[in-house]
Amino acid sequence: LPSRLPNVGTTIFSVMSALAAECGAVNLGQGFPDFDCDPALLDRVNDAMREGLNQYPPMAGVPALRQAVAAKIAALYGRAYDAEREITVTAGATQAILTAVLACVHPGDEVVVLEPCYDSYAPNIELAGGTVVRVPLTPGTFRPDFARIAAAIGPRTRAIIVNTPHNPAAVVWTRAEMQRLAEILAPTEVLLIADEVYEHMVFDGAEHVSASAIPELAARAFVVSSFGKTFHVTGWKVGTVAAPAALTAEFRKVHQFNVFTVNTPMQHALARYLADPAPYLGLAAFYQRKRDLFRAGLAASRLKLLPCEGSYFQSVDYSAVSDLPEAEFCRWLTREVGVAAIPISAFYDGGFEQRIARLCFAKRDDTLERALERLARL
Amino acid sequence: LPSRLPNVGTTIFSVMSALAAECGAVNLGQGFPDFDCDPALLDRVNDAMREGLNQYPPMAGVPALRQAVAAKIAALYGRAYDAEREITVTAGATQAILTAVLACVHPGDEVVVLEPCYDSYAPNIELAGGTVVRVPLTPGTFRPDFARIAAAIGPRTRAIIVNTPHNPAAVVWTRAEMQRLAEILAPTEVLLIADEVYEHMVFDGAEHVSASAIPELAARAFVVSSFGKTFHVTGWKVGTVAAPAALTAEFRKVHQFNVFTVNTPMQHALARYLADPAPYLGLAAFYQRKRDLFRAGLAASRLKLLPCEGSYFQSVDYSAVSDLPEAEFCRWLTREVGVAAIPISAFYDGGFEQRIARLCFAKRDDTLERALERLARL
Ligand SMILES: CSCCC(=O)C(=O)O
Ligand SMILES: CSCCC(=O)C(=O)O
Repeated sequence: LPSRLPNVGTTIFSVMSALAAECGAVNLGQGFPDFDCDPALLDRVNDAMREGLNQYPPMAGVPALRQAVAAKIAALYGRAYDAEREITVTAGATQAILTAVLACVHPGDEVVVLEPCYDSYAPNIELAGGTVVRVPLTPGTFRPDFARIAAAIGPRTRAIIVNTPHNPAAVVWTRAEMQRLAEILAPTEVLLIADEVYEHMVFDGAEHVSASAIPELAARAFVVSSFGKTFHVTGWKVGTVAAPAALTAEFRKVHQFNVFTVNTPMQHALARYLADPAPYLGLAAFYQRKRDLFRAGLAASRLKLLPCEGSYFQSVDYSAVSDLPEAEFCRWLTREVGVAAIPISAFYDGGFEQRIARLCFAKRDDTLERALERLARL
Repeated sequence: LPSRLPNVGTTIFSVMSALAAECGAVNLGQGFPDFDCDPALLDRVNDAMREGLNQYPPMAGVPALRQAVAAKIAALYGRAYDAEREITVTAGATQAILTAVLACVHPGDEVVVLEPCYDSYAPNIELAGGTVVRVPLTPGTFRPDFARIAAAIGPRTRAIIVNTPHNPAAVVWTRAEMQRLAEILAPTEVLLIADEVYEHMVFDGAEHVSASAIPELAARAFVVSSFGKTFHVTGWKVGTVAAPAALTAEFRKVHQFNVFTVNTPMQHALARYLADPAPYLGLAAFYQRKRDLFRAGLAASRLKLLPCEGSYFQSVDYSAVSDLPEAEFCRWLTREVGVAAIPISAFYDGGFEQRIARLCFAKRDDTLERALERLARL
């Protein structure tokens, strides 16, 4: 069988989690919390199951959950999406992004991605028969380089994928940057896939500027979010896509023939949970405290901290410690130091090298402290 | 935005369920039970959640669940799949089939489907850039027509999709038919996508002959199953794919960039549930009793019963009752008679007309009786 994805192996997140488990390392690699969600959310799943809510939900998602999402976006970002025709519940953000790509990318279309980026984007585009056009973020700062973005957009460009807050670089695009993107896209028909799964994790008073908050962008965007990231249940695989009705119609054509629909009791539980006041509040402060604790600890090590404006990832420059290429360094760190990390090179096609490793701080304080002790020895 | 699926609307199952709800009709349209699963299964989900099993599971699925699936296939069908390298847990059977198609179909490849068939197959093939080659099942009997199948296979054929027990026609392929398929495929490199989601619902002592039971087929097959169908939890969206290691490797490359992975607490719950003796036993008898009750009731009506060897669908020829085309008849039946059904024409490209409607008998006895009362008035 000739491969549809000949250059793809097992995703780095699985590889490093498996190695961490094998070595008994503290796993700061793959991005997931090692603490529990609010038990009230589990109660609600249990309630929904006992009420017999275990059969197919509506294809686009449980209406109450779609309404809760629309209400949140209206409250936080000021755009009124129609829950019926513009919000779709997905089996996580990764499924949302593949589905958006399959719904809009025709064979031969170009899609711009900004490197470093999440490792599913390029294979998603290839599966749709599209061509990946890679534009680097500014070296060193990882901020968008608008001259290069503008230059990459041409007559065959169907879409651009933008991720803010950014994984792995932890940069949060400013309002001015989102507006600059809007100016560049305004004269074109280029669609935007906005991966905003870390939207609630922004620090030092920074603001998450959603594509849904910028009318010029919202009118052409699939805005992707994740309940797994937000409520510490990455294994539940529930996300959402907000998009104008015409885009949503195309999205749902593909969605219904991909997963058809998404876990019923989890959807009802999330809908009921969101009916309480403001479960989103406090999340930024919760993670800022962890970030600060982690950064303060790392400051005592020989690892150099990169800025962390958002997401739950802290990247470090390890060049004072080791000359190893990133993938090798991360394997060595896992095996010999007992801390698993992710090489930033895995977010680049062909593996650009910078001596940077990504550490996830969505962990219990004692886990972070255990990792810090080990990293201090470097 | 030009559509990737210009000829696709909302799937008929969603349309008819929405209409049934709107009219307060008894919903025998979309295939799902209106009764609860074993409460022990819910207990196990609750246990898993309380134990903190809410983060990403391994990409290919929880090992204990993959082992339980491998053990079941070995016990029932006599093939030993390697749980580690040959079984993958999916977000339902629909996602499994799209993922298998994306993993093996290259642009320009042909894929044979046997009409009538589930409405996701053709769009799945189109999204992969493949060409759908439609071969009708034998008119009247809906059994495979091997002369036509053999004639449809050519140098560009990448795969064939076979569904047994069959939705909507309720035919179960015999061992001789599966072996005939094996003979036809043996000299070729054509892959098999075997949709066996109704594998545990076969009647009158008929045997489900899985593709995994026929070595020549198993060596080239993605064998798809569904816990949702089997355990009355269609809304949980957990299925599996069994395939030789080389095919599984390609499958997982796509799977990891589609859903990445599948609901953690449901996977653990199913794994623990399957550790008990034989939850599969009794399912055929359970549904046979419903089928017999439903057929006995329908025999008193003017609807003509088609054979039902397997699945939880009973099709009826309504030509003695109405001249309406199938889609119109089903809407009329939902609105005016109060029983929702699915037109068989929805399983054909372009809507071949036979005056047949599909009724789902995965319902409580009182639901079936209520529907029968209404259908008796026809
Ligand atoms: C879906 S795999 C891991 C989660 C993640 O987004 C990451 O670690 O970058
Ligand atoms: C996934 S939609 C409905 C279920 C089904 O398979 C059917 O009704 O045929």
